[in-house]
Amino acid sequence: MKAARLYEYDPAMNVELKIEDVAAPTITAPDQVVVKVGAAGLCRTDLHIIEGVWKDIMDVEGNLLPYVMGHENAGWVEDVGSNVTSVKPGDAVICHPLRTCGICLSCRYGDDMYCQHGAFPGLGLDGGFAEYFLTNERSLIKLNPNVTPLDVAPMADAGITAYRAAKKAARLLRPGSWCVLLGIGGLGHIALQSLNELSGGRVIAIDREPAAQKLAKDLGAHVVLDGGPDVIEQVKEITGGGAHVVIDFVGELGAENLCWKLLRQGGELIVVGYGGKIEVPTVELVVNEIKIGGSLVGEYTELVELMELNADGKVKMHYSEYKLDDINTAIDDFKNRRFAGRGVIVP
Amino acid sequence: MKAARLYEYDPAMNVELKIEDVAAPTITAPDQVVVKVGAAGLCRTDLHIIEGVWKDIMDVEGNLLPYVMGHENAGWVEDVGSNVTSVKPGDAVICHPLRTCGICLSCRYGDDMYCQHGAFPGLGLDGGFAEYFLTNERSLIKLNPNVTPLDVAPMADAGITAYRAAKKAARLLRPGSWCVLLGIGGLGHIALQSLNELSGGRVIAIDREPAAQKLAKDLGAHVVLDGGPDVIEQVKEITGGGAHVVIDFVGELGAENLCWKLLRQGGELIVVGYGGKIEVPTVELVVNEIKIGGSLVGEYTELVELMELNADGKVKMHYSEYKLDDINTAIDDFKNRRFAGRGVIVP
Amino acid sequence: MKAARLYEYDPAMNVELKIEDVAAPTITAPDQVVVKVGAAGLCRTDLHIIEGVWKDIMDVEGNLLPYVMGHENAGWVEDVGSNVTSVKPGDAVICHPLRTCGICLSCRYGDDMYCQHGAFPGLGLDGGFAEYFLTNERSLIKLNPNVTPLDVAPMADAGITAYRAAKKAARLLRPGSWCVLLGIGGLGHIALQSLNELSGGRVIAIDREPAAQKLAKDLGAHVVLDGGPDVIEQVKEITGGGAHVVIDFVGELGAENLCWKLLRQGGELIVVGYGGKIEVPTVELVVNEIKIGGSLVGEYTELVELMELNADGKVKMHYSEYKLDDINTAIDDFKNRRFAGRGVIVP
Amino acid sequence: MKAARLYEYDPAMNVELKIEDVAAPTITAPDQVVVKVGAAGLCRTDLHIIEGVWKDIMDVEGNLLPYVMGHENAGWVEDVGSNVTSVKPGDAVICHPLRTCGICLSCRYGDDMYCQHGAFPGLGLDGGFAEYFLTNERSLIKLNPNVTPLDVAPMADAGITAYRAAKKAARLLRPGSWCVLLGIGGLGHIALQSLNELSGGRVIAIDREPAAQKLAKDLGAHVVLDGGPDVIEQVKEITGGGAHVVIDFVGELGAENLCWKLLRQGGELIVVGYGGKIEVPTVELVVNEIKIGGSLVGEYTELVELMELNADGKVKMHYSEYKLDDINTAIDDFKNRRFAGRGVIVP
Repeated sequence: MKAARLYEYDPAMNVELKIEDVAAPTITAPDQVVVKVGAAGLCRTDLHIIEGVWKDIMDVEGNLLPYVMGHENAGWVEDVGSNVTSVKPGDAVICHPLRTCGICLSCRYGDDMYCQHGAFPGLGLDGGFAEYFLTNERSLIKLNPNVTPLDVAPMADAGITAYRAAKKAARLLRPGSWCVLLGIGGLGHIALQSLNELSGGRVIAIDREPAAQKLAKDLGAHVVLDGGPDVIEQVKEITGGGAHVVIDFVGELGAENLCWKLLRQGGELIVVGYGGKIEVPTVELVVNEIKIGGSLVGEYTELVELMELNADGKVKMHYSEYKLDDINTAIDDFKNRRFAGRGVIVP
Repeated sequence: MKAARLYEYDPAMNVELKIEDVAAPTITAPDQVVVKVGAAGLCRTDLHIIEGVWKDIMDVEGNLLPYVMGHENAGWVEDVGSNVTSVKPGDAVICHPLRTCGICLSCRYGDDMYCQHGAFPGLGLDGGFAEYFLTNERSLIKLNPNVTPLDVAPMADAGITAYRAAKKAARLLRPGSWCVLLGIGGLGHIALQSLNELSGGRVIAIDREPAAQKLAKDLGAHVVLDGGPDVIEQVKEITGGGAHVVIDFVGELGAENLCWKLLRQGGELIVVGYGGKIEVPTVELVVNEIKIGGSLVGEYTELVELMELNADGKVKMHYSEYKLDDINTAIDDFKNRRFAGRGVIVP
Repeated sequence: MKAARLYEYDPAMNVELKIEDVAAPTITAPDQVVVKVGAAGLCRTDLHIIEGVWKDIMDVEGNLLPYVMGHENAGWVEDVGSNVTSVKPGDAVICHPLRTCGICLSCRYGDDMYCQHGAFPGLGLDGGFAEYFLTNERSLIKLNPNVTPLDVAPMADAGITAYRAAKKAARLLRPGSWCVLLGIGGLGHIALQSLNELSGGRVIAIDREPAAQKLAKDLGAHVVLDGGPDVIEQVKEITGGGAHVVIDFVGELGAENLCWKLLRQGGELIVVGYGGKIEVPTVELVVNEIKIGGSLVGEYTELVELMELNADGKVKMHYSEYKLDDINTAIDDFKNRRFAGRGVIVP
Repeated sequence: MKAARLYEYDPAMNVELKIEDVAAPTITAPDQVVVKVGAAGLCRTDLHIIEGVWKDIMDVEGNLLPYVMGHENAGWVEDVGSNVTSVKPGDAVICHPLRTCGICLSCRYGDDMYCQHGAFPGLGLDGGFAEYFLTNERSLIKLNPNVTPLDVAPMADAGITAYRAAKKAARLLRPGSWCVLLGIGGLGHIALQSLNELSGGRVIAIDREPAAQKLAKDLGAHVVLDGGPDVIEQVKEITGGGAHVVIDFVGELGAENLCWKLLRQGGELIVVGYGGKIEVPTVELVVNEIKIGGSLVGEYTELVELMELNADGKVKMHYSEYKLDDINTAIDDFKNRRFAGRGVIVP
C-alpha cells in the first residue's frame, strides 16, 4: 500500500515525509482491526513530531524510525480479529487515537487516556497517512448514518482535545458566567461550538488573526477581541472583574502568563497549548483562589459525544483536503498558515 | 391602592377575587422594600389556592383571608428600608417569590428554598395582584437593561420551577442522551428552551395539544409525540432502550406512573407536576437502578441565571396580558385553556 | 470436580442442591480464566433463585437447569486464556460477579453493571459452589498481600452492594448530617463501616434484632433504634426534622413506605432491599423535594475500592464457614437466621 | 476594656502590641453583635500583619493604625442589634473571620468568602485580642453544648483553612488513593484529622520536625516522611507513580516547586501556604494533566461542619494558652516555634 513515512527528526523541519510502497498491516491478535483509511487529519503534533519534540518522550533510542505518521484517522473496517464483535468489514468508523487495554484500573474508571498499556499509532508506530491502518476494537466508533470519514477525521484528536477542555469549562459556567477562549484555530473553533451547546455561559474569543476573529463571530462568540496590550483591562471590564474560566490554546509566547491574569476570584485556567512556562506567585493562587490545570486529548467517550453533536449538526470541523501524494505540501501550508481550520489527508 | 383579594376557598372555584381599594403597604423593618407592581403572573398554584388545596398547608385556621394573591411579581422599587443598599427607588426588579432570612443554615448553603423562616407572599399574606407589593431586599434582582417587568414577571415562579428541573436534567445528560418532557405548557416550554441552552442532549416533547406540539417543534424539540397509548414503545425505540431523564410537568391523571416506565437503566425521573400518587415496586427501582425525585420552585440564584439567559435572548416567556380589573376573566380563561403560555396581570 | 447444582425452582424451597461430580470448566476463549475456588459467599439472592423469583427474568424458558449456583467467589487463578496478561496461575483473586465486555458504551463510561453483554455466573450459568469456576479477565481483582479468599468472598456481591449505597450516601452527607440505615445484616454492617470511612456524617442504625443492634453499636453507629411504632417521631427529633439520607436494606414488609417518611426536605432514599411496592403522592415528592432511587450491585471499581478499605483494616465482613458438602445445611441455617453476618462455602 | 493594639508595621518585627485601655465596642446597626471574647487564636497571618505584608493589600494609605488585632475569635454574646434573631446574650459562639453581606451574588451562591462587601476584623479594623469584639449576626455559630470558646477559637481561621483544603482533597480521593500533606503544623494536623474523617484515602505526611512527625503518626497518617532529598522517589514508589492529591501548607522555600512533582497523571495540588513562586512548564501540565490551585480560608458553612466534627470528638485543635497581658510573649514564642499546635490568647 501507499504510505507517508518519517525517516528523521529535524528541529528546522527541513525534511519531507517519503511517499512509498509498504506492506499493508494484517491481523495478528484477536482484538485487532484493520481500517481502510478514508481520511487522516494533519495535526500540530505532527509538526512537533517532525521537529523531534516528542523524540525524548516516545522514541528515546531513536530506533523507531521510519514509521507512518497520522493519528486522526477515519475510514472503513477492512478486517477484524477473531474476538471482535462490535464492528464488521464495511462499517464506517472513526478511530480514537489511543489503543487502550480495557483491563488496567484507569481504563476501568473510564479514564482511558491514562491507560497503563496505551499505544498511540502515528507516534512511534505506524499511523494513518496510508491506505490501511491497524488498530484495536476498543478504539473504534461507528459513524452515524450520513457521516463520512472525511467529514470527521480530525475530530479524532483535535476535536476531542477541544471538546474535553470545553466540557471541563462548561461544568464551571452558569448563565451569566464568562469563558475566555484564547486562540480560535483548529481546536478553538471546536471548543467555541461545543461551549455554546454545553453551557449557558458567554464566550469572549481572543485571536490576533482577522480570519479567526470573523470565524469566532460567525460561530456565536459573545465578544471577540484582538488580544492587544490592554486585553486584561478589557476582559476585567466586560466581565465585571475577570473571567470564570479561561482556555488557553496557545500555551506559549506569553499567552501562558497572560491567561491566569484574566481570571476572577475562584476562576480556573485550562491549558491546552504548550511550549511556555507558567510563573505564578503562590500568594496570587491563594488570595484569588484560582486554579491552573492542563488538559489532554479527550477520552473515547468524549469522541462518542462529539460524534453525536456532529451528527446533530451542532459542531462541525472546518477543513481543507489534500491528497496523500501532496502531504508535504499540506505540511508546508500548515506551517505557513495557508489554510483555515484543519488540513485533512485523503489516500 | 387597587388590589384583588381572595375572600373564601371553594373547591368548585365558584368564587371571584374582589377588586377593591386597600391601604398600600409601607416599610416597617430595615430590610423591607416596597415595589410598584409592573406585572404579576397568574399561576396554576393560584387556581389551587382558590380551590383550597393549600389551605391545610398554609392556612390551617383559615383566618388569613382575605388577602391579595399573586406571587410572580416584577416592577420598580418604590421605597426601601434603612438597611437596604443593593437597590434604590426607580430600579426595575423581579421578585423571587420567597422572602428568605439569609441567616439559617439552608440559606447559608445557598438552598434558600428550604429557608427555615421563609415567607411566600400571595399565599396567606399579601401578594402582587395590586398596585404595590411589600417584600425584602434578599428577594430582589435588578433587571438587565432593556428588559421590562411585563417581559419577565412569570419567570419569578413558573420560569424558575421549569429552569430548576431543566438544570437538574442537564447535569445528567450528555450529547446523544435523551430527555423526555411531558407537558409543553407554561413550564414545559421554558424547560425546553433551557435544556437546549444548558445541555447537548436531545429532547422528546410529549403533549396531547396540537398547539403545544407546534410550540415544541418551533422551540427545537428533537422529536414531538402526542402521548398516545404506545408512547412507552415509541420512546424505547427512539432512545434505544429508554430515556436518560424524564421531566413530568403533569404529575397526575396517569402521567405519574407512565413516566418512570419511560426510563432506561440508571435513568432519573424529575417530578414537577403533582396531584397523583406514584406506585412503583422496589424491585423495579433496584434492578433498573432508576431514581424518582420531586423538584420545587427554583432558588434565588436560579432566577438570576434565568434572567441572564433571558437577557441574552435565549429563553423567552410566551404570555397574554390582562388588566388587573379583568383578573377574574383571566382566571376563567386560564381554567378553560383559552390562552397559550402564561397569563400576566398588569395593574 | 465436586459441585452443588440446582435442579428445580420451588417457591416453598423444599428442594436441595445436589452435590455431584461434574466436569471442571476449561478455557475456550482468549480472555477466559479458570479460578480454583477458595470460598464462595451464600447470598439472599441464592434463596430467591431457588424460590424461582429470578426464573422469569433470567430463565424464562426454564431450560437452564441444572446449573452450579454461587456468585460471590474468590480463589486462585488456575488457568488463563491466550490474551490474558493481568493475572497468572497462582494469583489470589476475587471475582466481580458480572462478566463484562469492555466494549459497549456502558463499560466505556465505567458503568459496567449496565454492560449490554454482561453474564452473571451462578444465575443461569455455572457459578462458584464448586471446586473450579470459569470467568473472564475483566472480572478479576488480585488480592492484597495477606488477604485470603475466605476473608473476602462475600465482598464480591453483598459487600459491593452495601458499599455502593454507602458511597452514594456519603456524597450527600456532610459533618452534622444524618443517615439512617434500616437493617444491619450482611449488607447493613458493611454499609455502616463504609459510611464511617467515607463521610463525616452521623448514622442512625435501625434493626429489630438485639444482636444486630449490638453489632451496630460496636461498629460505631451514632444512635441505634429498634424500629418501634414511633420511629418516625424518634428520627425527626434526633435529626431536627428528618434524615438527609436513608438506606433501606429491607425494601418490603412496610419498610419501603416507612423510609421515605424519615427524610427531611431535600433528602434522599436509597433502596437496596426489594419485594414491596412504594406508594408516594407526587405532592410529597415535590413539596419536600425528596428523591427515591434504587441501588444495584456495585461496579468492578467499587470492588477494588472495598478491597482497599479491607486491606487497610477499615471494613471487615463477619461470616460463618461451611463445607461445600454441607451447603444445604448452610442454606437452611440462613433461612432460619441461625448465623450472624454472612455464610461462606468452602470446597 | 483591655485590648492589644498594633501601632506600626515592621518587617523586622521589632515592635510589640500595646496593651491598653480602650472604649468597648457598641451596637450601631441592626445586624450587629458584641461578643465578650473567651479566646482568640494567634495566627501566622498576625505575624505577617505586623511585618507589613498585608499593608499594601488592606491598608494602602497606612492610616488604619492603631487597631486591635485578632481574627480567630470565640466567646459569648454580650449585646445584639434590633434585627438579630438567631443569637441572644449569653450564647457561646465562634466567629467566622469574615463579616459578609448576605446580599451579593457570591453570598447568595454560598461562596461567602468572595463577598463583595466583606470585612475582616483584626486586619485593618478592630479584632479580638481584647475583652469585647464587634461583629455581625451572619458571622456567628452557636457552640454545641459542652464546647467552650477556648477549645475552638483557632478553628475560626486556621481550622477552616485546613478543613477547606482537606474537603477539596477528599472529593478527589477514593479508597486506595494517596494524599500527601506537606507541613503538619497548626493547619496540617487539622487537615490530617479531617481527611481521615471525610475520605477513605491514605495520607503521606511530610515534615522535617520530629515532633510534627510524631503528631502525624499519632493522628493516623499512613506513612510519615521527613522530606529529605529523595522525597520525590519515595512518594512515587509508595504510591505507585505519584500522589492523587498534594496539599502544600508551606508554599515557599522550595516546597512550591517540589509539590507538583509529587503528583501522578491527573493529580491535583492544593496550595495553602504562600510566599514562593511556582514555575511549571505548560507541557508538564498538559501531558500529565495535573492541576494546581490555591485554597483560601473556609466558608461559614465549613466552620459549621468543622464544629460538628469537633463536637463528635473527631477533629481537635492542639493549643497553648496565654493571657492577653502576655500576648507579646506568645508572639515571640510563636516566631521561635516554642510551642506545638496553636497559641491562644485569653483576656
